[in-house]
Amino acid sequence: MDDRELLRSIAGIVGREKVLDDCASYPLGSKMIVASTDMLHESTDFPKGMTDRQIGWMSAAVTISDIASSGAAPLFILVAVGLDRPERLEGIMKGASECCEFYETEIRGGDIDSHDELTVVTTGFGIADEDCYITRSGCSPGDLVYILGNPGEAQAALEGDIRYWLSLVEPHPFVSEALLIAKAGASAMMDVSDGLALSLYDLADASGTGFEILAERIPLSPGVISEQALYGGGDFGLLFTCDPGMMPVPEVEAVCIGRVIDSPGVFLDGAAVERRGYLHRWEHKEDEV
Amino acid sequence: MDDRELLRSIAGIVGREKVLDDCASYPLGSKMIVASTDMLHESTDFPKGMTDRQIGWMSAAVTISDIASSGAAPLFILVAVGLDRPERLEGIMKGASECCEFYETEIRGGDIDSHDELTVVTTGFGIADEDCYITRSGCSPGDLVYILGNPGEAQAALEGDIRYWLSLVEPHPFVSEALLIAKAGASAMMDVSDGLALSLYDLADASGTGFEILAERIPLSPGVISEQALYGGGDFGLLFTCDPGMMPVPEVEAVCIGRVIDSPGVFLDGAAVERRGYLHRWEHKEDEV
Repeated sequence: MDDRELLRSIAGIVGREKVLDDCASYPLGSKMIVASTDMLHESTDFPKGMTDRQIGWMSAAVTISDIASSGAAPLFILVAVGLDRPERLEGIMKGASECCEFYETEIRGGDIDSHDELTVVTTGFGIADEDCYITRSGCSPGDLVYILGNPGEAQAALEGDIRYWLSLVEPHPFVSEALLIAKAGASAMMDVSDGLALSLYDLADASGTGFEILAERIPLSPGVISEQALYGGGDFGLLFTCDPGMMPVPEVEAVCIGRVIDSPGVFLDGAAVERRGYLHRWEHKEDEV
Repeated sequence: MDDRELLRSIAGIVGREKVLDDCASYPLGSKMIVASTDMLHESTDFPKGMTDRQIGWMSAAVTISDIASSGAAPLFILVAVGLDRPERLEGIMKGASECCEFYETEIRGGDIDSHDELTVVTTGFGIADEDCYITRSGCSPGDLVYILGNPGEAQAALEGDIRYWLSLVEPHPFVSEALLIAKAGASAMMDVSDGLALSLYDLADASGTGFEILAERIPLSPGVISEQALYGGGDFGLLFTCDPGMMPVPEVEAVCIGRVIDSPGVFLDGAAVERRGYLHRWEHKEDEV
């Protein structure tokens, strides 16, 4: 069982639409309130060598990215920290605070707890104009598929390419670009933090469509290979779909990598892409029971 | 060092007012958006013997209580679960979902993660009319101090009084009462989940005032002793202050236990109350470093 299968198992309790998107939404007048929560912990989410400040930055960034990817301007975040050592709090809050400042948002509260393993849960709140709010489920056959940012850098760093270490530990989500894309009328959007392949499947599944992707179109940074770009997580590029007439959008340097098709599935140069990426696997734990 | 001292240590980073209240707030038109996050984990927050359903219920209840205590109607919650065993998710989400239904709110999203120790972080989101939004810092000398609900039951249950087991593991916050109290114009309010003594200090410190409390006025359930009522955590009664003319409020069976005074400190029948209750202590961890 992986994350997504586990989520499907509770769809009957909380509703199918609640497990599809990274963001929850709530209409308020002509606005859409958007909220998203992310749980990170040391052993699986913070690569060895990160400073506490970087841990704080990354924790804020993942949530700010989710909020912006839905077309909402981040209003504020809350930070709950389960601390293995209390003296880590200061660095973590400094990093989170710097990230918020960079994206013109702020920390407005949180919670602390003692914990055997450092655990950081950030929750972000944002607000979108109703017609700018984007989910994963809006794409239709005929739309084009775009990516902004070069996927695979974080995975390359994990595999030792020091050039991309900062992309991994101090990710910079495309917040202003996400809002421009949303305003321009993109049909679906998400960040690729779980990996490009999995994100393509997420969009396709949520929208009830499929994708045809051209391998040569996927933008690769020097030394990054296609395997890392497709299946590595930890990048914060944007994946979105739109009507063929929408792009270009000023200040958005996105690349068209394919098109939305009628039939389900994600195909790269005609062959089905593996449905894998950054997923927690649960078998080990189940075996322990 | 305890929780509150640790929070004070980051006041310079995130701002003093951000570490005072359980709730973050954000003005939106004539409304106040309110958000609160709570991190709970198995070893310190979920007494042995709780079912997964009860763990879910309690996790939702603590956050719903914080939201309501600020005078805001809960709109929705997010639930992030760090699972030691994936099969626990269903029970936890059922319990959280039932609690939300009971309080006419809902789960709208969340996150899951694998974790050595079960960790649940709930984040609630509510909305208040601007003039109903209450913080901890609004009380003035001359106000009266009220409590709703009998404190100490959860602590009594922890010490073996089976009569109060359900108060401990399936807490029922006073949501509708909190909203009535806020609407009536209370000057400060919070729930007593960290214990009555500590909550009195929290209100007094935030408001820059003190309290004179009469021991005989504190409502005690059968078998609950004053020590449990003052220093035990896990109850979800409401502590609030108001102008002497405000009470009674229909449907709010609160008891006046004292008054707000000019000078700092919390006094019970004239003697200073100990500043202790439900606090994480960090000494052990620091020694380990």
